[in-house]
Amino acid sequence: MGWIRKFTGRDGGLDWEGVERDDYQDPHIRGVSVRWLIGPAEGAANFAMRYFEIQPGGHTSLDSHAHDHGVLVLRGRGRVLLGEEVRKIGFGDAVYVSPYEIHQFTCVGDDPLGFLCVIPPRGRDTE
Amino acid sequence: MGWIRKFTGRDGGLDWEGVERDDYQDPHIRGVSVRWLIGPAEGAANFAMRYFEIQPGGHTSLDSHAHDHGVLVLRGRGRVLLGEEVRKIGFGDAVYVSPYEIHQFTCVGDDPLGFLCVIPPRGRDTE
Repeated sequence: MGWIRKFTGRDGGLDWEGVERDDYQDPHIRGVSVRWLIGPAEGAANFAMRYFEIQPGGHTSLDSHAHDHGVLVLRGRGRVLLGEEVRKIGFGDAVYVSPYEIHQFTCVGDDPLGFLCVIPPRGRDTE
Repeated sequence: MGWIRKFTGRDGGLDWEGVERDDYQDPHIRGVSVRWLIGPAEGAANFAMRYFEIQPGGHTSLDSHAHDHGVLVLRGRGRVLLGEEVRKIGFGDAVYVSPYEIHQFTCVGDDPLGFLCVIPPRGRDTE
């Protein structure tokens, strides 16, 4: 059966009923949290949709892995490293990170950078 | 290689550089358009992310198929039929439509209902 995660965010913040925020604890990651909106724990076997938030001054790890990412920015401004190229990103921008491409997301400015990130099933174990 | 589709929307409208809008021509669908942000034509083999917009008074078809959907509402208000249940949806709500579940999205009110819709690879041919 399908279901709805009701949005409960306000004042620019994004949050959902019954969805927990997990903060990354990793020396290569700074100020990053994730909320799993749709994924295997929610009964979705074929893809996952997560909401990431990076605090000002923060960044994800410098990453490269087999699964690809589909990203849509929902708040704030940032930079994304795609291979050898650095690009600015902001609200509404869609980013595709291809398999094994080196990538890193960084928050720029005083507001958090928030984005949806979709992964295929094989991304489950490696994020 | 990865890439970015830059957001170009304004005044509440959502649009992206180099992304075409396709209007559905089907007697069971009313006032619905789709923009493919990420998908097989863009080199993404493992999932697709599309942006759907339903005009006031419009709706998608009454559908049921093997692939599941992951949805996030980006603008407007609407209703979604999930199996036998009808639920209200609005900005930020995340909806999961499970495989073979009967579903239909309807715009409510005077503004378009816009949402991201993710599908796994097997959804390519059947939408």
